[in-house]
Amino acid sequence: MDILLKNAVIVTQNNAREIFNGDIFINGNKIERIGKDLNEKVEEKMNCKGKLIFPGLINTHTHIVMTLFRGYAEGMQLHEWLAQKIWPAEAKLKSDDIYYGAMLGIAEMIQSGTTSFNEMYPFGLEKIAEAVKDGGIRASIGLGMLDKVPGHSTKDELKTNNAFIFSIKNNKSRVKASVCCHAPYTCSSELILKSKEYANKKNLQFHIHASETRKEVFDILKEKGKRPFEYLNSLKVLDEKTVLAHSVYVSKREIALAGKTKVNISHNPISNMKLAGGGVCPISEFARAGANVTLGTDGAASNNSLNMIETIKIATILQKNQYWDPRIISNQQILDFATINGARALGINAGSIAQGKLADLVIIDLNSPNMVPCHDAIANLIYAMNPSNISDVIVDGNFVMKERAIIAFDEEKILEKVSEVAKNVVSR
Amino acid sequence: MDILLKNAVIVTQNNAREIFNGDIFINGNKIERIGKDLNEKVEEKMNCKGKLIFPGLINTHTHIVMTLFRGYAEGMQLHEWLAQKIWPAEAKLKSDDIYYGAMLGIAEMIQSGTTSFNEMYPFGLEKIAEAVKDGGIRASIGLGMLDKVPGHSTKDELKTNNAFIFSIKNNKSRVKASVCCHAPYTCSSELILKSKEYANKKNLQFHIHASETRKEVFDILKEKGKRPFEYLNSLKVLDEKTVLAHSVYVSKREIALAGKTKVNISHNPISNMKLAGGGVCPISEFARAGANVTLGTDGAASNNSLNMIETIKIATILQKNQYWDPRIISNQQILDFATINGARALGINAGSIAQGKLADLVIIDLNSPNMVPCHDAIANLIYAMNPSNISDVIVDGNFVMKERAIIAFDEEKILEKVSEVAKNVVSR
Repeated sequence: MDILLKNAVIVTQNNAREIFNGDIFINGNKIERIGKDLNEKVEEKMNCKGKLIFPGLINTHTHIVMTLFRGYAEGMQLHEWLAQKIWPAEAKLKSDDIYYGAMLGIAEMIQSGTTSFNEMYPFGLEKIAEAVKDGGIRASIGLGMLDKVPGHSTKDELKTNNAFIFSIKNNKSRVKASVCCHAPYTCSSELILKSKEYANKKNLQFHIHASETRKEVFDILKEKGKRPFEYLNSLKVLDEKTVLAHSVYVSKREIALAGKTKVNISHNPISNMKLAGGGVCPISEFARAGANVTLGTDGAASNNSLNMIETIKIATILQKNQYWDPRIISNQQILDFATINGARALGINAGSIAQGKLADLVIIDLNSPNMVPCHDAIANLIYAMNPSNISDVIVDGNFVMKERAIIAFDEEKILEKVSEVAKNVVSR
Repeated sequence: MDILLKNAVIVTQNNAREIFNGDIFINGNKIERIGKDLNEKVEEKMNCKGKLIFPGLINTHTHIVMTLFRGYAEGMQLHEWLAQKIWPAEAKLKSDDIYYGAMLGIAEMIQSGTTSFNEMYPFGLEKIAEAVKDGGIRASIGLGMLDKVPGHSTKDELKTNNAFIFSIKNNKSRVKASVCCHAPYTCSSELILKSKEYANKKNLQFHIHASETRKEVFDILKEKGKRPFEYLNSLKVLDEKTVLAHSVYVSKREIALAGKTKVNISHNPISNMKLAGGGVCPISEFARAGANVTLGTDGAASNNSLNMIETIKIATILQKNQYWDPRIISNQQILDFATINGARALGINAGSIAQGKLADLVIIDLNSPNMVPCHDAIANLIYAMNPSNISDVIVDGNFVMKERAIIAFDEEKILEKVSEVAKNVVSR
């Protein structure tokens, strides 16, 4: 679609991090021009006076189908939560459940300003891909392989994975495939090694949980004689195309390793805190070392939302408090983590409003009590904004939300279906 | 006004913490009946099918005028932030600025589900009282007296305070007066002692910052030979009518003292974390000891919002993470902190939906992607809700917000005025 957005405050996130008053011309799925008084002939022209436009937020770690389990398993730590509640409930999911769970998550993400997400799930990938297609959002999705859990074999996991990768024919479209291993403690070395080799061969991103709990660190250290990052490095996993989700419990040596390899770190503070892990991912140290720091919500079963705006605020203040230093992380940095760094982690040409970039944009209404006054637009985005401020969302050059209503699909119908599905899933 | 709310899910927060499907009959400013199939003749009847009603949130510590300084002083610690940026900017505030700043904060609070707040400010109290009257919200407001800062004397502070208290003629109305001392490090013992005596005499709440930073603890310990809570206890400040804001750095002995005296603790996690204090208020320990734990946002200059929904979520997950224990605090407890405990701290007959209670209610739309499914209504309120879900707010038996629009006053006009005022204030 050709769109002209006029008279907005534009937080570009371009190389100079300019904030600019003017217009954006979207041609097809790309941003073609940014400037003053643009007058291109377009299908759709929108007056954005009193509005601010920023690059869509990028959620680099989630399990979108788990929106079905929002509020289902409260007051538990990661390992008991997985074994006693989540895995048994997931085992009962049917193909349609997965589709509707994913659609629900997509609706929530759009309404909270997320335009791309990085998904890992242990089954039903074709249904998630279908939902992403229908939902109008952008995603990188992969099968969360694991072979150290009963019922899963290395061979079968790789086979299912390869078939899924093969099914995503155009890997430059909104729906991208990635290669995912669940975690160092649920995957054999063989599985991790072969998966990453396959990802390299196919030029795909790789995605794995790492150092989420203290238990994991000590288990891996005992079994492999190495800490998780060192172990993963010995399997040649750490590089610019790998996303390490969580990365909470790391040594200084592992932080340096992350910096040297420029690996992508996905910090998920809400999930980590809610599951009471007890630590804080040292994002300021990772960033200083040279790693590419990004942010994620994790699934709604441990968050219990998919709202990246919350994650941005919590990640910032948590880091300041942890280091007794209000300058340990800047407001600009944290916005980078949630936009351009996220795009880099997912290997997509988005995350900033600049010529040639994918048109993934969020439009907010500045004329709201919580966004006034505007002494500092970036500070307002990070600390004051909430989903009620978001009026319109554009993904891949198309409006998916307009004047607060999702137009990419029938939200009402999805909500009806989901309430049914969710009831069945936990009572089956 | 007489109102009948029909067919809602009601999170009552009553003694049995019932969640109930039914109707609420509001007679004047009070809740008169809760039940099924109520049929009272009323001025206004509302079908709340698909909606959930909960008691309005109570913000037990804020400085509402500081919304004018949202985003104005970023990346600083408390003491430099106060001395270098906030106090100089506040010194320039004019009477009208105070009114519009307060109205802005009231609009933001209403839109994020807060119906009562506890205000402390060093001047302009009559303008804040006027805003509360016009804004339709409920508040307890007091002059933040201090006499260890140049330009302030014990005598003048008490005189201004007493004149303000006298000006609030009906202390049972929406606008209540309280007696406030700024902090142990900015007030003389004489000022604290006399203020608390005056509060006791007038049967008013007392409100003071306490143990907000490590520096404060060590300064007081050095000067008085006692930790802040012990020092305040020696001045007879700790009791059921006193709110201690922050209370981050406390010994086990001070926690026991708080429990024994049943003092009110106002936990303000976002402000504490953003100002990089480095600690976590031990709310789970305070609650276990018997203190009345409540939640606050602090001012928008250090938060940078007045959104209690965020504060609830952050307070919960921060406590879980701090103690490595997902059960250290329950979802029900944290909702209590933000509702009934808040009402107790402010000395108001609100915080639950029960016969005879003040009609301060929030109505949300359950049919939103982030609130679906609803396996656990309390968990959804605490972790998944955001201001976009709030459709209507009732304070003192009157709608102040209806179908997402503030009806208590002209929001547009306030926003226009505030943008002007805020620009002038920081450039004067």
